[in-house]
Amino acid sequence: MGDVHTNGKTEHCNGSSKTNGTVMKNGFAGDAALRSSRPSLWFEEEIEEDLRWVFSVSKILHTGLSKFQNIALVDSGPFGKVLILDGKLQSAEADEFVYHEALVHPALIHHSNPKNVFIMGGGEGSTARETLRHKSVQNVVMCDIDKEVVDFCRAYLTSNREAFRSNRLDLIINDASRAELEKQKDTFDVIIGDLADPVEGGPCYQLYTQSFYEKIVKQRLNSGGIFVTQAGPAGILSHGEIYTSIYNTLRQVFKFVVPYAAHVPSFSDTWGWIMASDQPLCKLSVEETDSRLKQRLTGDLRFLDGETMTAIFGLNKTVRRTLAGETHVYTEETARYIHGHGSAQTLSR
Amino acid sequence: MGDVHTNGKTEHCNGSSKTNGTVMKNGFAGDAALRSSRPSLWFEEEIEEDLRWVFSVSKILHTGLSKFQNIALVDSGPFGKVLILDGKLQSAEADEFVYHEALVHPALIHHSNPKNVFIMGGGEGSTARETLRHKSVQNVVMCDIDKEVVDFCRAYLTSNREAFRSNRLDLIINDASRAELEKQKDTFDVIIGDLADPVEGGPCYQLYTQSFYEKIVKQRLNSGGIFVTQAGPAGILSHGEIYTSIYNTLRQVFKFVVPYAAHVPSFSDTWGWIMASDQPLCKLSVEETDSRLKQRLTGDLRFLDGETMTAIFGLNKTVRRTLAGETHVYTEETARYIHGHGSAQTLSR
Amino acid sequence: MGDVHTNGKTEHCNGSSKTNGTVMKNGFAGDAALRSSRPSLWFEEEIEEDLRWVFSVSKILHTGLSKFQNIALVDSGPFGKVLILDGKLQSAEADEFVYHEALVHPALIHHSNPKNVFIMGGGEGSTARETLRHKSVQNVVMCDIDKEVVDFCRAYLTSNREAFRSNRLDLIINDASRAELEKQKDTFDVIIGDLADPVEGGPCYQLYTQSFYEKIVKQRLNSGGIFVTQAGPAGILSHGEIYTSIYNTLRQVFKFVVPYAAHVPSFSDTWGWIMASDQPLCKLSVEETDSRLKQRLTGDLRFLDGETMTAIFGLNKTVRRTLAGETHVYTEETARYIHGHGSAQTLSR
Amino acid sequence: MGDVHTNGKTEHCNGSSKTNGTVMKNGFAGDAALRSSRPSLWFEEEIEEDLRWVFSVSKILHTGLSKFQNIALVDSGPFGKVLILDGKLQSAEADEFVYHEALVHPALIHHSNPKNVFIMGGGEGSTARETLRHKSVQNVVMCDIDKEVVDFCRAYLTSNREAFRSNRLDLIINDASRAELEKQKDTFDVIIGDLADPVEGGPCYQLYTQSFYEKIVKQRLNSGGIFVTQAGPAGILSHGEIYTSIYNTLRQVFKFVVPYAAHVPSFSDTWGWIMASDQPLCKLSVEETDSRLKQRLTGDLRFLDGETMTAIFGLNKTVRRTLAGETHVYTEETARYIHGHGSAQTLSR
Repeated sequence: MGDVHTNGKTEHCNGSSKTNGTVMKNGFAGDAALRSSRPSLWFEEEIEEDLRWVFSVSKILHTGLSKFQNIALVDSGPFGKVLILDGKLQSAEADEFVYHEALVHPALIHHSNPKNVFIMGGGEGSTARETLRHKSVQNVVMCDIDKEVVDFCRAYLTSNREAFRSNRLDLIINDASRAELEKQKDTFDVIIGDLADPVEGGPCYQLYTQSFYEKIVKQRLNSGGIFVTQAGPAGILSHGEIYTSIYNTLRQVFKFVVPYAAHVPSFSDTWGWIMASDQPLCKLSVEETDSRLKQRLTGDLRFLDGETMTAIFGLNKTVRRTLAGETHVYTEETARYIHGHGSAQTLSR
Repeated sequence: MGDVHTNGKTEHCNGSSKTNGTVMKNGFAGDAALRSSRPSLWFEEEIEEDLRWVFSVSKILHTGLSKFQNIALVDSGPFGKVLILDGKLQSAEADEFVYHEALVHPALIHHSNPKNVFIMGGGEGSTARETLRHKSVQNVVMCDIDKEVVDFCRAYLTSNREAFRSNRLDLIINDASRAELEKQKDTFDVIIGDLADPVEGGPCYQLYTQSFYEKIVKQRLNSGGIFVTQAGPAGILSHGEIYTSIYNTLRQVFKFVVPYAAHVPSFSDTWGWIMASDQPLCKLSVEETDSRLKQRLTGDLRFLDGETMTAIFGLNKTVRRTLAGETHVYTEETARYIHGHGSAQTLSR
Repeated sequence: MGDVHTNGKTEHCNGSSKTNGTVMKNGFAGDAALRSSRPSLWFEEEIEEDLRWVFSVSKILHTGLSKFQNIALVDSGPFGKVLILDGKLQSAEADEFVYHEALVHPALIHHSNPKNVFIMGGGEGSTARETLRHKSVQNVVMCDIDKEVVDFCRAYLTSNREAFRSNRLDLIINDASRAELEKQKDTFDVIIGDLADPVEGGPCYQLYTQSFYEKIVKQRLNSGGIFVTQAGPAGILSHGEIYTSIYNTLRQVFKFVVPYAAHVPSFSDTWGWIMASDQPLCKLSVEETDSRLKQRLTGDLRFLDGETMTAIFGLNKTVRRTLAGETHVYTEETARYIHGHGSAQTLSR
Repeated sequence: MGDVHTNGKTEHCNGSSKTNGTVMKNGFAGDAALRSSRPSLWFEEEIEEDLRWVFSVSKILHTGLSKFQNIALVDSGPFGKVLILDGKLQSAEADEFVYHEALVHPALIHHSNPKNVFIMGGGEGSTARETLRHKSVQNVVMCDIDKEVVDFCRAYLTSNREAFRSNRLDLIINDASRAELEKQKDTFDVIIGDLADPVEGGPCYQLYTQSFYEKIVKQRLNSGGIFVTQAGPAGILSHGEIYTSIYNTLRQVFKFVVPYAAHVPSFSDTWGWIMASDQPLCKLSVEETDSRLKQRLTGDLRFLDGETMTAIFGLNKTVRRTLAGETHVYTEETARYIHGHGSAQTLSR
């Protein structure tokens, strides 16, 4: 990643060539200037009004500005490179693979032969990257709202560069992915919701409603199709914010709904995802999962395998109880919101 | 002014009326004075030099001072009452049950008929509380180093009061629990290590060594006996600190070793525990676990049941790989330490 | 305050058995429990939305709750004992003498023979303490809104205990000190405004208005009488917030207006005061000031003397220019407010 | 994307149009990405172990790296552009003029006709800028240790650009300014010490010693020559750290020594300077000072004038007492150090 570093430096520090010359010679980042015996530059995420997640920033690699939000890629002390949108941690080099492997592979593995996949959001490119690992996948339609975020990630997130270049990826920039999904002639084997959490005034909460799932998502799924979405924080203290409500809403629309969760350190919480279908999502054995992953994917996964999947599908008693007892249905009128949690998605509409 | 206090407290305490009751009894002003439109008093835990976990403190309920450490019970914004030892979060009202249920019940459930249990550390009382839920348990010997911590928790942690009063509990204060355990005439069905993490200069690291496990712990176990210990952070980014090393060390001493982990929000990480025995720790089915919990325990658990146990025993691919590849054995010469992680134990020796 | 101070220190610095004794007696100990190798409990004052003043808290000495605000006395790392009202630093043991000597003595020294003094606010007691040092003063009327703050400070601020006990002090608790001042039969040689800064929604901004100065304050002054008020932050970056406006407002009402300022470290800013009268406030020489202080006061001052007074009356070019150019007049309609600056006053109305 | 960037910048820069102009020229994205409803990127200066000065950073403008230290120019919320060396605030756009006007002009004004000036340190360029305002000055020799800092400031501190280009400035880069000053054939009318505070292990403490003042500085002064140096924090709580010691040390070497001080907000403290000479530093009247400034300088000053000078030369009673009572003499053996205070100097040797 040294190259990126150098680019980052040159890009960010575009001061006098002299300065850069110096930096080059010494061959490391300029923003070291912000580091001393103890860190002096800190990124502070306000998880709740009374809870903060604070980590040091050693370098600001790239920054940009879009119609919808501000964008930055920084080098953090504990989490390596971190993508920040509008001052919120979106994705960290150190553990984004946990979020994205958990979002993508369970749904695709549960499908017998996924060929067409639609991604709502996902501008970062990691969701497309994981989806394209599936040899069976012939076409991925990804619809994100934010051209600048997509361009930014395409340019600077080297791990997703190949995915962005894939001829199996059909990238649509559209600030109305609801309409976009609606007007698709194709239907899909798997639809993946990689959207920002529903935040008050945010653009995404309509994409978590019963009517959207009923009238749009479900209509674009092939028979046997599977829908999966990120579903916000699912920790033992935070799962009541929106996770259980999204779960109960999906249960109004789909016959089979499977919630799961895993701890993502850089989010400072356990994160939740929910898989839904009208076909039974029959539990796969550890062996079956491992063999499907082996046969269907190119390359190895870092987080997910059969045993991991069994683990993340097993929710603890507290969370299961709240899920079972949830009666709230998510509509535009009854929308629930969460405080500024870090989430690994870019905006979409 | 009492009324005013009560109002004040009611205003700022999210606690149950029971909480208020407690406060009333102690009858002094809430540190509401430290709250304004925004929190002004913050507890900062330095998880790593470049990572901080910061939460608001609305009230300092009680404080004490022992020969070994400073003690405080505070009301926190996000985690309710929090026990702090030497400036480190030890246990939080909101989620201590996750830590303590996970520490105690898997080992006792895997034992056919646990009668005698030895707890190293555990001064807070929660580990004894969970152990005493087991009707089969006739005698619990708990050995903690710190009389003041024990007295403090006995006095102020109302949820553990009953446990401290149990005539099945044999409480020993001894700053050499190594010697204490050694000189025990009894042997035990289950030995529980509820000790502080090995911190440089701390008193506990000797209690994580191969020789201690070999020469002391193993000798005090009945045949078929099970040893379980907290084993530090086990998150996907932190499990390499000491968790894998404790695991590999136990494998040098016991025939069967089972690591498991769960996210504890107030620790801002996933936490690890390890169970070890010379008898096979045969995997219990969900049903068998649930029925044993139902038959053997008084009262309901909040976190743990059959499905939860399956989940926490299933580690993800990354962690399993590091565990499998670990070669470090923990001796007094090769001790590994961790940065000041929050941990739910009091000191012991 | 010395004694308590010493005990307090002994208490939280080293845990002597005496401390433990104390701990038991009080039923709660030094918050030493919150201290570790590095401070873990921090008081954070938000000076501006983008600027924070953060200091460690080692001990919470006393807390209370009033009809109007929350009250706390804490031991801070850098500033010794600190009085906090509604989460804002009000007064610090280490440097409150700067604020209070600068508020009180210049006005009294400029008066030929001050006998009767009225204090608006000042519930902390330090302003009365300094005023009562003047042998010529026969009667001090102090009117504060908040009985609990007054009782709290009387009980815990040992350095002001004597002042509170003085038979020359006439203490009035009244939530309408405007009315209170109005209905006073007496008139006064000096009126001191020791009020909270005008904060949006706060109770005090009416007490900084032209009409209040015109219709109330001026009417209660004897001929030759002097009015002095704290006037908010007066630093080179902050003096435009309210200081220049209060100055210009007083100029509409009084013939002679003298602004001055001094840095108060615990406020993290230079603070401003303004003296006003219809009699010329003729500049006193260093020698004259020193001799008046010597003759008229009991005890020595720590901050103020002739040379100091010359210094604090000399404002820098930037501040003088803004003062000269200020056109804003403070009325209830045109009120200006400041962000939550620390200020050394208790509420008053 | 350029336009978007510009907009972004305009949006988040509070800077003057000049600032924006500069930013335009560099034409790259504002770190607006790091700003959200609330600031998320913070610069934290540890003033003491228990006291922090924390301000938001909205943009990192330029960074570099030198043989001696890391360099950064950032846009801060409260203080505009801030120069940071090795993670410490060095100089802030909002108030650097206070520090530099106070450092330079009193000494030059007290000299009858300053022609040759030597600056120790001052790599930032602001001290040279202020010195060159004096028409009488024919030659300024500035000796700084750090070529990269000088190049960086020359390139990016637009307000000092002209000074760096002056043909009256003789810039020497030398990591032994002691030797450099020693070997100067010329002697000087004024020597200015614009050096970093003596920090343990820092390169500068030898330049505050009696022997250096005696054997080097004094020897290079013309008769009637004046030496002035920054002298560290001089607040009522901090002046005992090094200020009084430097004062007492200079008194061992020079017949006449004049200490003065002023609050510099971005340093979160009052700062100290000391002027010394073997010729009487006769006090100048306000009028005389104003007329000398008017006659001798090009352009207007923002902070200093006759009245300001009277004010900053007047120290308060507490500080004067400590100065008078100080017995410590600064030698390499008895060196005193301060915690990491922000200071407006670059390194020098």
